[in-house]
Amino acid sequence: MACVRALRSSEAEIKLVDRRNFHLFQPLLYQVATGGLSPANIAAPLRSIFKKQKNVQVLMAGVDGFDMAKRSVVLDDKSELPFDYLVLATGSTHHYFGRDADWEPLAPGLKTIEDATEIRRRLLTAFEAAEETDDPAMRAALLTIVIVGGGPTGVELAGSICELSRHTMKNEFRAIDPSSARIVLIENSKMVLDRYHGSLSEAAARDLKMLGVELWNETRLMEIRPDHVIVSHAGESKRLDTYTVLWAAGVKASSLGKKLADSIGPTVQLDRGGRVAVDSQCAVAGYSNVFVVGDLAAFSLADGTTLPGVAPVAMQQGAYLGNLIAKTVKGSRPTSPFKYWDKGNMATIGRSRAIVESGKWRMTGQLAWLAWLFIHILYLARFENRMLVLFQWSWSYITRNRTARLITGKTKVITGKTKETL
Amino acid sequence: MACVRALRSSEAEIKLVDRRNFHLFQPLLYQVATGGLSPANIAAPLRSIFKKQKNVQVLMAGVDGFDMAKRSVVLDDKSELPFDYLVLATGSTHHYFGRDADWEPLAPGLKTIEDATEIRRRLLTAFEAAEETDDPAMRAALLTIVIVGGGPTGVELAGSICELSRHTMKNEFRAIDPSSARIVLIENSKMVLDRYHGSLSEAAARDLKMLGVELWNETRLMEIRPDHVIVSHAGESKRLDTYTVLWAAGVKASSLGKKLADSIGPTVQLDRGGRVAVDSQCAVAGYSNVFVVGDLAAFSLADGTTLPGVAPVAMQQGAYLGNLIAKTVKGSRPTSPFKYWDKGNMATIGRSRAIVESGKWRMTGQLAWLAWLFIHILYLARFENRMLVLFQWSWSYITRNRTARLITGKTKVITGKTKETL
Repeated sequence: MACVRALRSSEAEIKLVDRRNFHLFQPLLYQVATGGLSPANIAAPLRSIFKKQKNVQVLMAGVDGFDMAKRSVVLDDKSELPFDYLVLATGSTHHYFGRDADWEPLAPGLKTIEDATEIRRRLLTAFEAAEETDDPAMRAALLTIVIVGGGPTGVELAGSICELSRHTMKNEFRAIDPSSARIVLIENSKMVLDRYHGSLSEAAARDLKMLGVELWNETRLMEIRPDHVIVSHAGESKRLDTYTVLWAAGVKASSLGKKLADSIGPTVQLDRGGRVAVDSQCAVAGYSNVFVVGDLAAFSLADGTTLPGVAPVAMQQGAYLGNLIAKTVKGSRPTSPFKYWDKGNMATIGRSRAIVESGKWRMTGQLAWLAWLFIHILYLARFENRMLVLFQWSWSYITRNRTARLITGKTKVITGKTKETL
Repeated sequence: MACVRALRSSEAEIKLVDRRNFHLFQPLLYQVATGGLSPANIAAPLRSIFKKQKNVQVLMAGVDGFDMAKRSVVLDDKSELPFDYLVLATGSTHHYFGRDADWEPLAPGLKTIEDATEIRRRLLTAFEAAEETDDPAMRAALLTIVIVGGGPTGVELAGSICELSRHTMKNEFRAIDPSSARIVLIENSKMVLDRYHGSLSEAAARDLKMLGVELWNETRLMEIRPDHVIVSHAGESKRLDTYTVLWAAGVKASSLGKKLADSIGPTVQLDRGGRVAVDSQCAVAGYSNVFVVGDLAAFSLADGTTLPGVAPVAMQQGAYLGNLIAKTVKGSRPTSPFKYWDKGNMATIGRSRAIVESGKWRMTGQLAWLAWLFIHILYLARFENRMLVLFQWSWSYITRNRTARLITGKTKVITGKTKETL
């Protein structure tokens, strides 16, 4: 989208191909998963966004592969879309450390709207089933929610689920006390949010504990089963009964990276996570007109590291490429390389609690939370969505209610023998 | 819900059993189907609604049947819920005139949130597929939307789909003109909204035509296939190519009516539509403590007709029964029969157009539309939803945009050979 926008005054004819008909603002997806917002509040139809930009045609289609000899993209209906310039920005997906087939059905991740409504369904159904069962052991297992991965998504999910069970659901049940739910956050490393400065990670850990989250640091997930998980901590293995496991751990690059590499040949390098190596202009080796950006690109820095898979990198790369292509079309290709301007990072932990880091400047607490709120409202596409989110946040700040707590969809939920038909 | 509310000060211990965890305001479901509102805007979690009413326990469960000897309801996990009083209010579902198995997958109806998002998905996908195809015949078929049934739901759907294609989607496509879409409303009788006064039906028909809806009155649907429908008008049969057929025709009573009749025996009568005959106190023959209300009940009037299957009947019956049970529990069962107070009917046709009928008083046009708007906002559960809907309506009134136009879900959509994998 940033690339298309930067091409707005160009003579270039743009085809924006996406499997979905909308842009999704992923950073707020956890709020859909916990019933605070509706999917449409954080999504905007692509056609509506680019309605006025006449040089772009939006096509809702999947991509099967590439034909580099013909310079074309092969769509999923086998039709071909020829190109002069190709920008690939298909991001990343979940990665279950080689256990995708077994673990994915048991521990949904949080990348799409369907993921979010599925997580919402499982979470809420667990509480419903707990209200109904007479078996104390099953009730305890139903009221145990395990989140795997202590990065921003895991932390935000854990924080919201605590708010949900401690405050939103208060007085809503008759047989159970929802605030007795155990929210367990499993993290492999020593700390949650371990990419932040130590003082911020500590603040986040403190806040999470205050909310009621159990932090299991230095803990490795060994196994996920329908009714329990096995973890390992300090060489000891431990079983935890649960019917709700949420995945916020590994990601891997979209499979189109490999398809691009296959169609070009061995000059294109993929890293361990499946990301495509690009040069300083985000171009693929040997092709000055084929670019990869965002989570799918491995953009190397002078110190040997690569740029992180975060939204600002993708957006800045997109805008950079839009300008580069616009100028190239006009006849003079710029030689300047892409430079990432790191404005900082932020994560929220719960009501009035967040951490913000920008260069050497760090902030925690209420002010950080307000900054988080402001920035997230700002980055939402469309004015209407900003207003709807702002209203819902204000309202749930006052009432602690979350109205989007709907159990929808027809997929089977695994919550113990008696509840398999739910 | 009306019954539970009326029991708020009673000593009765109430179990509210529902398959879903939320109350759905069905009259606005067509706005979810056409991308104007989000599901959560017209739904409210039952637990949240009855949070403060301590004598009610909400149970999310399906009902398998009844054991009248034991006076208990058998839930879908085979557990039994004993009762002193039973109020059955499970409403109605779609009815495809004996063609359920063939037609239901091809022509979704509009009763649940999943129905609404499925219709939204099919509608929007048809326009997306039309933008991509090069075949003019297929494009025309993709841009033909057929709605079966000219009652309030059919009329409201047709009106909104016209607005969507004529206004909301304007300038959003590059290869097609969405306003060229044909919206065909098929109605068996002489007129749409034929239960209203003739002058109102005529006003509605005029408004629909002005919006661009093709009214095919006195037309019978003979066949639905994946890529066309066959209709019959004045003895002649006609084929219409389309990939999008929406069902707004027949309804039949929930299957629990039959289950109740089976468990009681032949004293309980079911009418042709599967509705349970009830006496003047909404009780089932032979059981003064078993009641059926709403769409599932056949409540006979002095003139031999039965009360219509509309929301006000159900709500008034619920409130009546709540009072009756409260008094009976206290020791004195009232003898007064249920009396329906018909406040009137209303239907909206599109932007600034509606019809309202109350006794001999009739209204059309902008004022009727404002009345419709006001009443529908008022009947929404929860303040938050009222505000969210009001804001979205105002915004889309000004901008003609509809932001909830998301294609979600994974079910296969039938839109021609090239699009089967969508």
